Amino acid sequence: MKKFVKNAIGREIPVFMEGLGNLTPFKGAYDHFPEGNRHATRLTKSFESENKLLSDLKTGIERSGIKDGMTISFHHHFRNGDFLVNQVMDILAEMGIKDITIFASSLQGIHKPLIEHIKNGVVTGIETSGIRGELGEAITRDHILKKPVIIRSHGGRPRAIAAGETKIDVAFLAAPAADEYGNVNGVEGPTACGSLGYAMADAEYANKVVVVTDHLVNYPATPISIPQTLVDYVVKVDKIGDPAGIVSGATRITKNPMELLIAEQASKAVISSGLVKEGFSFQAGTGGPSLAVAHFLREHMINEGIKGSFASGGTTGYLVEMLNEGLFKTLLDVQCFDLKAVESIKTNPNHVEMSADYYANPHNKGCAANKLDIMILSATEIDVDFNVNVITGSNGVIMGASGGHCDTAAGAKLSIVVAPLLRGRLPIVVDKVTTVITPGETIDAVVTERGIAVNPRRKDLKEQFTNAGLKVVTMEELKLIAEKLSGKPEAIQTSDEIVGLVQYRDGTIIDTIKRVVE
Amino acid sequence: MKKFVKNAIGREIPVFMEGLGNLTPFKGAYDHFPEGNRHATRLTKSFESENKLLSDLKTGIERSGIKDGMTISFHHHFRNGDFLVNQVMDILAEMGIKDITIFASSLQGIHKPLIEHIKNGVVTGIETSGIRGELGEAITRDHILKKPVIIRSHGGRPRAIAAGETKIDVAFLAAPAADEYGNVNGVEGPTACGSLGYAMADAEYANKVVVVTDHLVNYPATPISIPQTLVDYVVKVDKIGDPAGIVSGATRITKNPMELLIAEQASKAVISSGLVKEGFSFQAGTGGPSLAVAHFLREHMINEGIKGSFASGGTTGYLVEMLNEGLFKTLLDVQCFDLKAVESIKTNPNHVEMSADYYANPHNKGCAANKLDIMILSATEIDVDFNVNVITGSNGVIMGASGGHCDTAAGAKLSIVVAPLLRGRLPIVVDKVTTVITPGETIDAVVTERGIAVNPRRKDLKEQFTNAGLKVVTMEELKLIAEKLSGKPEAIQTSDEIVGLVQYRDGTIIDTIKRVVE
Repeated sequence: MKKFVKNAIGREIPVFMEGLGNLTPFKGAYDHFPEGNRHATRLTKSFESENKLLSDLKTGIERSGIKDGMTISFHHHFRNGDFLVNQVMDILAEMGIKDITIFASSLQGIHKPLIEHIKNGVVTGIETSGIRGELGEAITRDHILKKPVIIRSHGGRPRAIAAGETKIDVAFLAAPAADEYGNVNGVEGPTACGSLGYAMADAEYANKVVVVTDHLVNYPATPISIPQTLVDYVVKVDKIGDPAGIVSGATRITKNPMELLIAEQASKAVISSGLVKEGFSFQAGTGGPSLAVAHFLREHMINEGIKGSFASGGTTGYLVEMLNEGLFKTLLDVQCFDLKAVESIKTNPNHVEMSADYYANPHNKGCAANKLDIMILSATEIDVDFNVNVITGSNGVIMGASGGHCDTAAGAKLSIVVAPLLRGRLPIVVDKVTTVITPGETIDAVVTERGIAVNPRRKDLKEQFTNAGLKVVTMEELKLIAEKLSGKPEAIQTSDEIVGLVQYRDGTIIDTIKRVVE
Repeated sequence: MKKFVKNAIGREIPVFMEGLGNLTPFKGAYDHFPEGNRHATRLTKSFESENKLLSDLKTGIERSGIKDGMTISFHHHFRNGDFLVNQVMDILAEMGIKDITIFASSLQGIHKPLIEHIKNGVVTGIETSGIRGELGEAITRDHILKKPVIIRSHGGRPRAIAAGETKIDVAFLAAPAADEYGNVNGVEGPTACGSLGYAMADAEYANKVVVVTDHLVNYPATPISIPQTLVDYVVKVDKIGDPAGIVSGATRITKNPMELLIAEQASKAVISSGLVKEGFSFQAGTGGPSLAVAHFLREHMINEGIKGSFASGGTTGYLVEMLNEGLFKTLLDVQCFDLKAVESIKTNPNHVEMSADYYANPHNKGCAANKLDIMILSATEIDVDFNVNVITGSNGVIMGASGGHCDTAAGAKLSIVVAPLLRGRLPIVVDKVTTVITPGETIDAVVTERGIAVNPRRKDLKEQFTNAGLKVVTMEELKLIAEKLSGKPEAIQTSDEIVGLVQYRDGTIIDTIKRVVE
């Protein structure tokens, strides 16, 4: 018999789940404090130069000591061009290994073959920031996974690793460039992806670390993003990824006139807040109008002669141009979204690689997300309580990624969601989002084409926006307009089966994802 | 009643000491394996941007929570120009704190005021790589310290930190440049010292980390040598060091004709070994003829068109020139010895900062010392079993530093000691060194002005040296020549009191240092 409690935002959360143990319900964005010590890895030894270089991936897997029931990790810097997850899982399947938990920083459409591995019992658990494509459908609709997927934010993942909440038995690091002793960087070779920020905590805390590369360079591989001191084996393979898939198409600035209008309104809003001043910091999420806000801020910065401190997060060519124009002193980069960003991080010392821990872990002594002045966020859905969903579609199926959404919303002085009222014919502003990734208490305002809704706890902002001539409305008003345009959305039909658990950045459970039935 | 055992090189070692617990005797250079897990630090939290910046050092000390009996750490990148150790200890004395263990990467003449703090009970323990000047005299002759000094190598120190052998309560980081959130680098400001390699393990494993700087820069301080994620407080002071003392004078290439002769013979020896070839790696210790070997190798490399892989360790302008000439692909730098090296590490991406862990910790998954082909070492004394002393003078008094001596000797394919037969009127080659830092089994040959002695287990080298026309002699022969020239050295008079314990890199005890009585 499952026992449930209501968490701080009123979502029903199981207090225990088989295979996962006790769960802590979300208490409020700033109310859960970590206890105890960080995970301690085993002491190793290396008195002389061992030969770490292995001839093929299967040997690497065997030497890593993988057994049934273990947890293995991957990073997603190759995005939809990643070959490594499928290569490793095919070999594990061949070897007859079962009951593996895949601990990935994110999963993409290319990882569809996992469906078969799940059905065959090779994989029984997945922990990830996001899942895209048919894998999400199969997990949400067909409930193929034994354990619920655990969705973590980009800051929550290194937190979980450091806390020993998830113990990585073997980390597989897809390495654009590596030397034979295990130094790795992301800026050279045919699959150069720039920053390796998401792979760093894995290397630091995994019991065994296997570097897989298609570009072996002379010792020492520099710059050193992952050091030899953390690496057990280096495997040379023919191809670890498809460069075309590494570059993300979803990161160009929108040309959609309505999204540009929203972005312009959002930039007026942030300017009116007074935060856009000498030394300010900025991040924009990917997709839709959010990146376009940078474009409007740039004009304002040039006109007013304002120079920012840093821009952060995933990095695009547009931010690189702003760096080169002197509009920001530094880019703090956890992942590069395009080749311009890759080239920049390779050559410009002011374009700095940062780990996911540095970016957003709330349980270290201070992350970059804490230093953000302005954060521009996207949303799949947002509700009248300002809670945001970016993980499930309006059909209830897992199709997105938690990313740094809740981390930056909590850390930034001003976090603004930009979203059109409707997407296709579906309302974005709703009564109650399907799944909560980011709690409303950390969202300050929502900018739509029909007006800006301000979180009631930010009366100061409401006044600033109004004084600036912006149209301030309530979330209820936005919701009613949306419903008038497209009708009230039909409720999603779900069973009681929990196919996913959404962790807040601090490790508490903010929501569940139920099986969708039709 | 103390119990003693003889270790693998025949030195008498106590099996237990009050305040230190059980001690493991040295078993052989490659025979002690670590057990258990790394030290786990406490989980912390930082949900929003806290104010870490404090107005003065006393506030920083108070906020760090220092209490009687704690262990505090310092790094020695400022060498004899360091102000921080004395500043902190004066405040602790004022506050009435007692029974502090100072865990320093090294101590210099400038730290003489520690004598008073020891006598007053503020300091009762010291763990360090080296001690120079009057402090060494007071410890060795007057036995002023309650617990014996623990001497560790540069690789043994991060090993001890990571293993939790020494738990650092508060780490004080002298920072040439820092921002208000705790990012630190060593390349800017009036006390720029370049690499901060020795401070990194402290920041990673200390319970509290206090950054002290006289050069506060805009956020984020880049490059980031120590990240904000590890730092609790940042203190701005007027002056953290004297730039004149930071530059080490002992690192210029010798002009002494006999030392140059020895260096030339040593370079002929290493060339005859066949190791000086495309992609080889090299390190030379400081002082005497050892750095001059680089000078002779350089000529050979230019003549033969040989390009090395990396040079490592502490870095001088001479190595920077070799990097700039393309003679090495990379410098791996744990500390900069002069301003030319500081400027180079700031601007040349092939001049790479490395942590002491990366440099030499034998209990990670692979350190740079393991990848060395050729290591040129100095010696204060060397005995007929090839054991080397670099910590005590021939009068038995602590006056030097363990440094990376035993780490690199064990890791390198070829480790050669260069030393004159006599220094002043004292023989360097002796029956039995006063204190063993590096066991003879890891030394391949000793080059003197009277010939080269080859370790009997390296018959291959003996043949190569002889074929190259070098004069090969035995250690006994060298010792006899030295004694003929200067007489047999008088035995040092010591009591049974143990004033120091010398750890081998792996944490076992290789020797003790006894109180000198006259």
